[in-house]
Amino acid sequence: MRLSQYFLPLIRENPNEAQIVSHRLMLRAGMVRQSAAGIYSWLPLGLRVLKRVEQIVREEQDRTGAQEILMPTIQPADLWRESGRYDDYGEEMLRIRDRHEREMLYGPTNEEMVTAIVRDAIKSYRDLPKNLYHIQWKFRDEVRPRFGVMRGREFLMKDAYSFDLDAAGAKHSYNKMFVAYLRTFARMGLKAIPMRAETGPIGGDLSHEFQVLAETGESEVFVHPDYLEMDWESFDDGWYQASGRDALEAAVAHFTGLYAATGDIHDPAQCPVPADKLVTARGIEVGQTFYFGTKYSVPMGAVVNLADGRSAPLEMGSYGIGVSRLVGALIEANHDDGGIIWPDSVAPFRVGLINLRAGDAKCAVAADELYARLSDRGIEVLYDDRDESPGAKFATMDLIGLPWQLIVGPRGIAAGTVELKNRRSGERLELAAEAALQRIAT
Amino acid sequence: MRLSQYFLPLIRENPNEAQIVSHRLMLRAGMVRQSAAGIYSWLPLGLRVLKRVEQIVREEQDRTGAQEILMPTIQPADLWRESGRYDDYGEEMLRIRDRHEREMLYGPTNEEMVTAIVRDAIKSYRDLPKNLYHIQWKFRDEVRPRFGVMRGREFLMKDAYSFDLDAAGAKHSYNKMFVAYLRTFARMGLKAIPMRAETGPIGGDLSHEFQVLAETGESEVFVHPDYLEMDWESFDDGWYQASGRDALEAAVAHFTGLYAATGDIHDPAQCPVPADKLVTARGIEVGQTFYFGTKYSVPMGAVVNLADGRSAPLEMGSYGIGVSRLVGALIEANHDDGGIIWPDSVAPFRVGLINLRAGDAKCAVAADELYARLSDRGIEVLYDDRDESPGAKFATMDLIGLPWQLIVGPRGIAAGTVELKNRRSGERLELAAEAALQRIAT
Repeated sequence: MRLSQYFLPLIRENPNEAQIVSHRLMLRAGMVRQSAAGIYSWLPLGLRVLKRVEQIVREEQDRTGAQEILMPTIQPADLWRESGRYDDYGEEMLRIRDRHEREMLYGPTNEEMVTAIVRDAIKSYRDLPKNLYHIQWKFRDEVRPRFGVMRGREFLMKDAYSFDLDAAGAKHSYNKMFVAYLRTFARMGLKAIPMRAETGPIGGDLSHEFQVLAETGESEVFVHPDYLEMDWESFDDGWYQASGRDALEAAVAHFTGLYAATGDIHDPAQCPVPADKLVTARGIEVGQTFYFGTKYSVPMGAVVNLADGRSAPLEMGSYGIGVSRLVGALIEANHDDGGIIWPDSVAPFRVGLINLRAGDAKCAVAADELYARLSDRGIEVLYDDRDESPGAKFATMDLIGLPWQLIVGPRGIAAGTVELKNRRSGERLELAAEAALQRIAT
Repeated sequence: MRLSQYFLPLIRENPNEAQIVSHRLMLRAGMVRQSAAGIYSWLPLGLRVLKRVEQIVREEQDRTGAQEILMPTIQPADLWRESGRYDDYGEEMLRIRDRHEREMLYGPTNEEMVTAIVRDAIKSYRDLPKNLYHIQWKFRDEVRPRFGVMRGREFLMKDAYSFDLDAAGAKHSYNKMFVAYLRTFARMGLKAIPMRAETGPIGGDLSHEFQVLAETGESEVFVHPDYLEMDWESFDDGWYQASGRDALEAAVAHFTGLYAATGDIHDPAQCPVPADKLVTARGIEVGQTFYFGTKYSVPMGAVVNLADGRSAPLEMGSYGIGVSRLVGALIEANHDDGGIIWPDSVAPFRVGLINLRAGDAKCAVAADELYARLSDRGIEVLYDDRDESPGAKFATMDLIGLPWQLIVGPRGIAAGTVELKNRRSGERLELAAEAALQRIAT
């Protein structure tokens, strides 16, 4: 993509309305624009990151055997009356009347709707287990939306719902999702510490929040220091495929064995970690898992026939990941004074190609050729072909945070080299073009 | 995917609520379920098709240089007051009040929102032209939703918005989209005839509807017979890349040169085609293009600075494709008494692999091996490994309409062959496994 044609409205000054760094940088880098309080439009650069994050989430859901569906945003109120949550949910639920005065709502979550679908579709224990997920926009009418996409009102969530025959099966489904979550966040380079958590309006008696430590996190968290040293990336494909029920349970036990609690439930008197060792920090909640058994299936009549002729209500859990929030969390965890530093796995482009002298014929030919060679290899490039100063081009590339910067200028052309800069390490190398391309490709 | 594990709730009998064949087949084949009047949940099989359709639409938008963004579903009413459309739009607009009593709405279209984004971001003629599109759920509160996803209330639409400096530029942008639409529909095997159309609530004075002829179409259409013989697939990559402004204009002129009109604007007295030659048919509208100049940019103050220091309002057009409706339209155009017949380009899986005798060890081994070999080649397979009768398995595969059926049974195993059936032609061949795989792969 040529930057001269790209819709990338940059903002030079820090916007007043943005209190935290991810919000500031997302506005400045032209990733999003606010369209109403807590409601954002994703511009091309931001949407690319959102899709990368979404795709990682999807792949890790698929790997567990969960199946993707897509439920609508608008739900009938009657569905929520079946579970008893319609009146309980409070003002965060956006309530709507359609032209026939029917009560509807913009879904903040989908336990009722998916339970209704499964109730009508699955009649026999033979069709279990099932895990259905979707990645869909949700609405929670926050009284004070803030922090950009971190606490917006319209937000993209992955929510999965597991259906099992009994509590042991449901626990296994919970464990599969738990490990999928560790893997999902690790692929984005995030350490998300699982913490026992309140179940809130979803209900049930087992829940974990996954918290990314960051200074600007909204939650106060208390964690055992060993969490900071754990290997979060050990769940490779082989491990996952080979693992049976017991290995999965052991993994969950390992990652939940140490003390970690949010401020809501932390009790210094009960905490087993000595106060001088306990890490007190702030966290961004990027996911939450719930096991709630038959909380929805019993009132909604979601039962299956058993082999012996009896019937039993479905055992359920639900599992959320804040997909749009993760984009903000990733920036909170990956930035410096110059701007964003994208991890490779979610970067909107892999390379920013800079032509230092847009007016110089030799530079333009050399940069055009590099652009073609990178594109031919399937490497995504944002090519700054604008007629701007070198300083402005460097600042733009640092701001938008692509992993590699490839710089073409008159001096390098005379010497037969290009400059390759790694955004994260800051390392700069003068290399022959082919060597630079190989370095980028690996 | 093994059918024994797939969430595919089939319905044997024709559902009473479905009046047209696409609605019936989408329910019977477990593609969708209604969650409220005119609001559907997409189950795994249906979502696969929806995504295929969406991806073709996206690729053809990208090819024109349009850039993908994602605007939210919920919009502030004040934005629509700027254009004057808030009070005009009528009851199809789903109006909402949030917890602070602010007036909001669920977007039925996005002219105002995208104009506001561009107004704030683009200040100079140098940044034009631009075409921004998104693929997002919309809501139109139809008084009588019907025909399944064909006239639902919550529906997925691709809407693009072009911004140009002058009318000539805007016409060129219109022509690019026009040809992209012909290509998009042709890739799905659909002949969508462009017809001059009323502009309705979008406004402007140039508009085409793209109508797929189908008996169950909602619109009455009148077309020159030569449209039925035209080559709709001539817009290959080379043509598109090589074409300048004039070639594009000539192509649009070619495809709009003959008479074609919807019932709304058809006037027998004005029609140049003799009554005995005119084709009267029914059509499904799958897309519409609009050129409306400065209708939104003037009241909303979306102007750019010109080279000579003056400023000018943006020249705009908008371009919609009904992505979820297309899934229904595709079935209307591709089915027989047995069920759906997916075109290759949108099929949810390429192959249905049937093990005729799930209990037979030799059959299971042979079918498992074919499943692995197909998967290894990157061919998407739905593998019917269920313990059902051959008749039920054949009926299921015909119903869900995958392009190829690969059938493994005891007789074939004894003879060293498998049976390969083409869903569309009905042709059946006894082949060695490798020959069957090669045939499927090409």
